[in-house]
Amino acid sequence: MKRIWIDTDTASDDAVAILMALRWPDEEIIIEGITTVSGNVSLEECTRNALYTIELCGKQVPVYQGAGKPLVREAVFGYFFHGPDGMGGMNYPSPKLEIEENHAVNALIDAIRANPNEFILVTLGPLTNIALALSIAPDLAEKIPMCYVMGGAAATLGNITPAAEFNIYVDPEAAKMVFHSGLPLTMVGWELCRGEANLDDEDIKSVLAMDTVYSKFTVDCNRQAIQTNREWLGEPMLPLPDPITMAIALDSSICTKKGKYYVTVDVESEVTRGMTVVDERGVLEKDANVTVCWAIDVPRWKEALYKTLR
Amino acid sequence: MKRIWIDTDTASDDAVAILMALRWPDEEIIIEGITTVSGNVSLEECTRNALYTIELCGKQVPVYQGAGKPLVREAVFGYFFHGPDGMGGMNYPSPKLEIEENHAVNALIDAIRANPNEFILVTLGPLTNIALALSIAPDLAEKIPMCYVMGGAAATLGNITPAAEFNIYVDPEAAKMVFHSGLPLTMVGWELCRGEANLDDEDIKSVLAMDTVYSKFTVDCNRQAIQTNREWLGEPMLPLPDPITMAIALDSSICTKKGKYYVTVDVESEVTRGMTVVDERGVLEKDANVTVCWAIDVPRWKEALYKTLR
Amino acid sequence: MKRIWIDTDTASDDAVAILMALRWPDEEIIIEGITTVSGNVSLEECTRNALYTIELCGKQVPVYQGAGKPLVREAVFGYFFHGPDGMGGMNYPSPKLEIEENHAVNALIDAIRANPNEFILVTLGPLTNIALALSIAPDLAEKIPMCYVMGGAAATLGNITPAAEFNIYVDPEAAKMVFHSGLPLTMVGWELCRGEANLDDEDIKSVLAMDTVYSKFTVDCNRQAIQTNREWLGEPMLPLPDPITMAIALDSSICTKKGKYYVTVDVESEVTRGMTVVDERGVLEKDANVTVCWAIDVPRWKEALYKTLR
Amino acid sequence: MKRIWIDTDTASDDAVAILMALRWPDEEIIIEGITTVSGNVSLEECTRNALYTIELCGKQVPVYQGAGKPLVREAVFGYFFHGPDGMGGMNYPSPKLEIEENHAVNALIDAIRANPNEFILVTLGPLTNIALALSIAPDLAEKIPMCYVMGGAAATLGNITPAAEFNIYVDPEAAKMVFHSGLPLTMVGWELCRGEANLDDEDIKSVLAMDTVYSKFTVDCNRQAIQTNREWLGEPMLPLPDPITMAIALDSSICTKKGKYYVTVDVESEVTRGMTVVDERGVLEKDANVTVCWAIDVPRWKEALYKTLR
Repeated sequence: MKRIWIDTDTASDDAVAILMALRWPDEEIIIEGITTVSGNVSLEECTRNALYTIELCGKQVPVYQGAGKPLVREAVFGYFFHGPDGMGGMNYPSPKLEIEENHAVNALIDAIRANPNEFILVTLGPLTNIALALSIAPDLAEKIPMCYVMGGAAATLGNITPAAEFNIYVDPEAAKMVFHSGLPLTMVGWELCRGEANLDDEDIKSVLAMDTVYSKFTVDCNRQAIQTNREWLGEPMLPLPDPITMAIALDSSICTKKGKYYVTVDVESEVTRGMTVVDERGVLEKDANVTVCWAIDVPRWKEALYKTLR
Repeated sequence: MKRIWIDTDTASDDAVAILMALRWPDEEIIIEGITTVSGNVSLEECTRNALYTIELCGKQVPVYQGAGKPLVREAVFGYFFHGPDGMGGMNYPSPKLEIEENHAVNALIDAIRANPNEFILVTLGPLTNIALALSIAPDLAEKIPMCYVMGGAAATLGNITPAAEFNIYVDPEAAKMVFHSGLPLTMVGWELCRGEANLDDEDIKSVLAMDTVYSKFTVDCNRQAIQTNREWLGEPMLPLPDPITMAIALDSSICTKKGKYYVTVDVESEVTRGMTVVDERGVLEKDANVTVCWAIDVPRWKEALYKTLR
Repeated sequence: MKRIWIDTDTASDDAVAILMALRWPDEEIIIEGITTVSGNVSLEECTRNALYTIELCGKQVPVYQGAGKPLVREAVFGYFFHGPDGMGGMNYPSPKLEIEENHAVNALIDAIRANPNEFILVTLGPLTNIALALSIAPDLAEKIPMCYVMGGAAATLGNITPAAEFNIYVDPEAAKMVFHSGLPLTMVGWELCRGEANLDDEDIKSVLAMDTVYSKFTVDCNRQAIQTNREWLGEPMLPLPDPITMAIALDSSICTKKGKYYVTVDVESEVTRGMTVVDERGVLEKDANVTVCWAIDVPRWKEALYKTLR
Repeated sequence: MKRIWIDTDTASDDAVAILMALRWPDEEIIIEGITTVSGNVSLEECTRNALYTIELCGKQVPVYQGAGKPLVREAVFGYFFHGPDGMGGMNYPSPKLEIEENHAVNALIDAIRANPNEFILVTLGPLTNIALALSIAPDLAEKIPMCYVMGGAAATLGNITPAAEFNIYVDPEAAKMVFHSGLPLTMVGWELCRGEANLDDEDIKSVLAMDTVYSKFTVDCNRQAIQTNREWLGEPMLPLPDPITMAIALDSSICTKKGKYYVTVDVESEVTRGMTVVDERGVLEKDANVTVCWAIDVPRWKEALYKTLR
């Protein structure tokens, strides 16, 4: 059985990832805690969306609120992609679940120290909370067996800029700190969430045909994402980077090709800020610090999603 | 009466600054807590040096240990200047005082929240702890009436590099974060601690002639600093940036000229990393965020020091 | 008939590219001039290698010597890859052909102005000469129908660093200047010269079996490159980026997939200096300035090479 | 007798500097050539202003037009300070003198090579032309005994940004290249042109009272500069950085304090781009490359100006 802690800037695709984890068979997965961070939308909205998703699944998970902005820079949001509430503008009712009092960073430190080598960490947003936790408690790096990071673009182009993926771009200093902290990391770049890994029209129809509260929620809260992807980027499909990352965390066989490399994050340049630079060829001759996932088993990932929606 | 919290990478001149604060008349100043941070020397050495100094003064102040390295970068130390133990290689005995259990960042957050608008903050090292505290508790910015920062160089050259002063250079990201956090700041640049503000041979003789445990300690723990300044930099004098900053915090009239400007910190360039860029002419037309101290009353500063050594 | 001007830091694979152009049927191609630039090896060695190659082919082409170092930075060389003379350490005899007196930059300016819209430019090295020519004569940008650039890496990893390809890395400021000068550019990234586009052991055997002075030269002068690629990079093959670029310039149908995008060059960051950042998705909404070649017809490229070696 | 070559982005204060040189006693100074460069205003305007100034002085000097934009970056102009024509909006008539055909860069190279160690270079604008000349002809660095540079700010604040002076800011890459080229340089930072070195109201009255075509021209063409300085910067005085630099070139005793240091130029950071970083304390332990002028004899500088206006 895996015990999982999720750090998330909960908007539409985070919500689906959380739902997957909560709806995964209880004998395989326990969600021990959720920490929220500013990213796709404001911190308060992220927290509300996380609580709503838990409530929808009829579960109880402690939710702790974390950093309201990146370490050094001003916040950058993704409303254009996720909608005005981060949930496709669905205006879901306010959740009745309440957040815990403890700050996310301290909650995470306490939980990991109380359960060393027990919790898998899955990060779906900027790495601000994780960087803060590691700054205050560097020993965490040796007490978390693996951290799955939805973030970056491995030796390919970015989404928010030509060189960078959103989660890393928003807080590149936090990412750089975490990447070099000694924490075992598996990076799931956004390029794994393109092309056939997307849900196409057929897939979306199949999901809706399941006709469950979960399948409906999955499509509804992503309606702005679907539209933006279609109209702005000319890709008539729904990309789900956070659920793919969660799928790999839940079932590591979904990642079919990976390797460990020296990876760093650019924090200096106007044009490459937030880029994850992977030394795939080893030309820098530095120690490998990040496991990069290069390919996924698409049917297996989609089945992992579907089984939680039925 | 002023209530003061000191954040320090305690080496020789920090020690003198702490001594000044502890030996200042009790009816004027209370030292509420001391937090330590990696900087001049390793975190553990800084903490030990702080404890030793308190013990030497026969006082009781809670000491909390903080960040062991800068936010994003590797640590840079100043052993060449402060000696192998940060205290001139004096090999002082281990202090019997013990550090508190709580982490510096949480201690600072708790103390300020419990005493809003009550505590003056004086920082003598890199701003890592302060940045972490403000990241987790942004409300602190409105609950500290003034933070006196020993750091930077206002429109002049630096000491550790041609453009940067040591404390800001070591953790420029932390400094940038703090400078733009909304926390009221008074910057005491290292250029105020040059020339006649130094203790020259006459001054050092006068101090030694006081023949107290405090006067002896002041010269002894700085013996490496005196020698390095003399031999490496060709300046036969002892610079005391931290004590000057403390003097201004204790008696603000020691700063004789100041102004509030937009100040930022370079974090991007190889050659200017850690530089404090002061928009003294207002060409950027941005809101002023830092009060810069331009000049001090040198006799008054020295008398402030001497009265705590006698 | 195409009239071609070649700018080259002539080492082993440049030499093969020059040979290809010189040995291409005269009724299709005329080489009007060759300018040399510091890059793979020192300027003087590049020039000597270019002259030697022309002599080997029994041709007459004016050769002009250009910039001896990058615009702003110190030179970086590639001796480890191309051998101590840039030609596999073959110690070829000194050429009898002599260089022209005129500087490469002025020669290029004069030639293009005298033949507006007539000359195709093919660059096989750092873009220093081209940047200098465009700085002095910005009108050149409108008088060259196309410049084929061997350089960069389009949305993929680099060779000399994880993010950058050698030619652009060596003089990123020159590349940035040229990319934004208005000159029509086709970028042939080094990633097109990997995998099956390399000459493998079979290919090299076929080349040697041709048993001509040209086929022998092609393998000999690249012997260090073959060895370095095999031993250092674990790729038992000969990559030929310059000849592939020349092949596309000679027969544009060899590029089977291309698109025009906004492309810029990073000049700021330690980790991404010299990276060619391609906005393939158009997220920056800036005007396209560079045609990027995404794929080549490998058999066609190899046949283009072979026909000049037989 | 000194033989001088002037490189200039001729606007109001450049014009006064040129006038000073042309009106200086002929037995002491010969102006051998003037090259123009984009900077304060567009290249064409700079050239026209230079020609007009020569004509006004009744002299004949060959004028060569140079670079129309910085090496790598887009142009930045100073119309707000110098007026819409760079000459206070005086709309002076078109000069009858004509520019030479040769490009400034080639003219400079030819002149210096034909007269090695003969010509003092005085630069009053961005260093684009000089960088281009040194790129094409690195030997110039050993054939010019001294280059006086109006540019930079030595260990103090800038004018166009908090960290940078205009001439260096506009083309920092060119400046960096020139500073590290081996060319002997004397840097006259803009801070020497502040305070009492400015012409105050009294000084301006004195100049006008001379009632010559030259004294009138000096005040007229600077009327926008006077107004901008008064209204925007709150300094009711006329700063004349280019004439002060020229005065030092004409009479080196006007610089009363100087030293040679390692100086570099930041080209990487958003906030310090174009800053001249002077290692006055030698902490980098690099070879000194630039003589920095720290102080001037103000009465002597003003008398140098006045004697050319009477």
